[in-house]
Amino acid sequence: MKYQQLGLIGCGLMGGSFALAMKQAGLVGRVVGYSKSPSTTERARQMGVIDQTAESALLAVAGSDIVLMAVPVAATDATFKAIRHLVKPDVLIMDVGSTKRDVVDAARRTLRERIGSFVPAHPIAGKELAGVEHADAQLYRDRQVILTPIAQTQPELVVQAERLWAALGCQVRTMSAEDHDAAFAAVSHLPHLLAFAYMAGVMQQKESEAFLQLAGPGFRDFTRIAASDPAIWRDILIANREEVLKQSERFRGALGVLEQTLKDCQGESLEALVQGVAQVRSHWRLNTRQK
Amino acid sequence: MKYQQLGLIGCGLMGGSFALAMKQAGLVGRVVGYSKSPSTTERARQMGVIDQTAESALLAVAGSDIVLMAVPVAATDATFKAIRHLVKPDVLIMDVGSTKRDVVDAARRTLRERIGSFVPAHPIAGKELAGVEHADAQLYRDRQVILTPIAQTQPELVVQAERLWAALGCQVRTMSAEDHDAAFAAVSHLPHLLAFAYMAGVMQQKESEAFLQLAGPGFRDFTRIAASDPAIWRDILIANREEVLKQSERFRGALGVLEQTLKDCQGESLEALVQGVAQVRSHWRLNTRQK
Repeated sequence: MKYQQLGLIGCGLMGGSFALAMKQAGLVGRVVGYSKSPSTTERARQMGVIDQTAESALLAVAGSDIVLMAVPVAATDATFKAIRHLVKPDVLIMDVGSTKRDVVDAARRTLRERIGSFVPAHPIAGKELAGVEHADAQLYRDRQVILTPIAQTQPELVVQAERLWAALGCQVRTMSAEDHDAAFAAVSHLPHLLAFAYMAGVMQQKESEAFLQLAGPGFRDFTRIAASDPAIWRDILIANREEVLKQSERFRGALGVLEQTLKDCQGESLEALVQGVAQVRSHWRLNTRQK
Repeated sequence: MKYQQLGLIGCGLMGGSFALAMKQAGLVGRVVGYSKSPSTTERARQMGVIDQTAESALLAVAGSDIVLMAVPVAATDATFKAIRHLVKPDVLIMDVGSTKRDVVDAARRTLRERIGSFVPAHPIAGKELAGVEHADAQLYRDRQVILTPIAQTQPELVVQAERLWAALGCQVRTMSAEDHDAAFAAVSHLPHLLAFAYMAGVMQQKESEAFLQLAGPGFRDFTRIAASDPAIWRDILIANREEVLKQSERFRGALGVLEQTLKDCQGESLEALVQGVAQVRSHWRLNTRQK
């Protein structure tokens, strides 16, 4: 399995890291890249992340046998429109979006009968530091990648995608876009929403600066995701808002139970509750390829 | 500044680490330790954390010129009662509790006119792994320690305490117990409550096991504190429940604002909100002695 040309649409952290990983693994001949901002594309070329710049998304697809769309979720629709005339059955097209129902919907609307080439993908990896400067050939190593093919997706392209991500050191899973979005609302999108809300609540207080100077390692880890990219998280949270709001509702219920134990000074109930979650959390391990 | 004998009441992670740090810094001649569980005391002795076991808290205080109470917050009252007959003006007594108003109240009730010896202390350090097995001479290094003396506290003992923690590599601050508890409700206790509630909400769902297998590095960091010691956190949350409930109320308001932007698909408001918190969070640094 070796591709002649990767067409990279979006040369930021996610796309740039994919290009570097593909090169390092010897899986691609050359990389042609396009980014909305010409300065990003140029920087990617200077850094050796891509070999050649393209003037448009369509030109990045021209002559490529594999295409990765690594653009903000909200730009998916426009990107599909820009490239659809060059989408051919033998070209593997993937995205890296954190939500999948909206991406699949956009693909249905835009690619129509050419949708079989598109294998929706979500690599569970990232950094708080966006931009091609932080691109890293190891970003995807030992991470999970979720593929959410639909009935029309060409099965051989799904197999290709599975092999490719596995060759980059990932553990690959396949599920429906609906199951994906429900699960990630619970384990990723809600935590981000809560971390944003928590920080906003602290910052509203006039003592917030003094408070933040006292914060320790627990705060550091709990709020790390509150420093995530605002535009990316705007798109994710709005794209998956129904599932996120369902999870938030459930969370409010659980918080209410805990608050009630405090109001009533019910030490035993509180301890039992914390014991239950602490046990599950202390046995949980990040699911990686190696473990 | 060198102490002849440290009386250690509670030989767990916090107490054991303090004893090891004092020894490593050459600040103490010997350590006499007592724990509620004789097996813990014995293990501490075998590990060299303490030099001699005491049969009671009172006997750990006898002959000591410095005493550290490293017991769960709820045991503070009983510990003060057990030792008060040997509390003398020239003996520095400190605790390590994460809440301070309740500790100061217990000291007032129990130590009465002997309260001047007690310097309430809260080192902002810890691990999810409790127990003397995890005691670590470096636990307090580069961490902050908050002292919350009251009007009756002997000033020279406050100075002693400041010097001592500084000698262990800590940055020392002094504030009122009230300010301390309000600040830590915001930056520590509420995050724990939210992490517990979040885990509880996820665990209620029948798909929770499948969900948790998909969770990534964001989840890992956000929920790390959900694995904290249940008995310790029961005590902290109940002791500081008024401030914690106030913070939780404020958090619910901030969460409500975010939820509303999702319901209304207000991408711009959502992004502006996230931008604001992301900026503050990305500039925040853990306050340590060196930076």
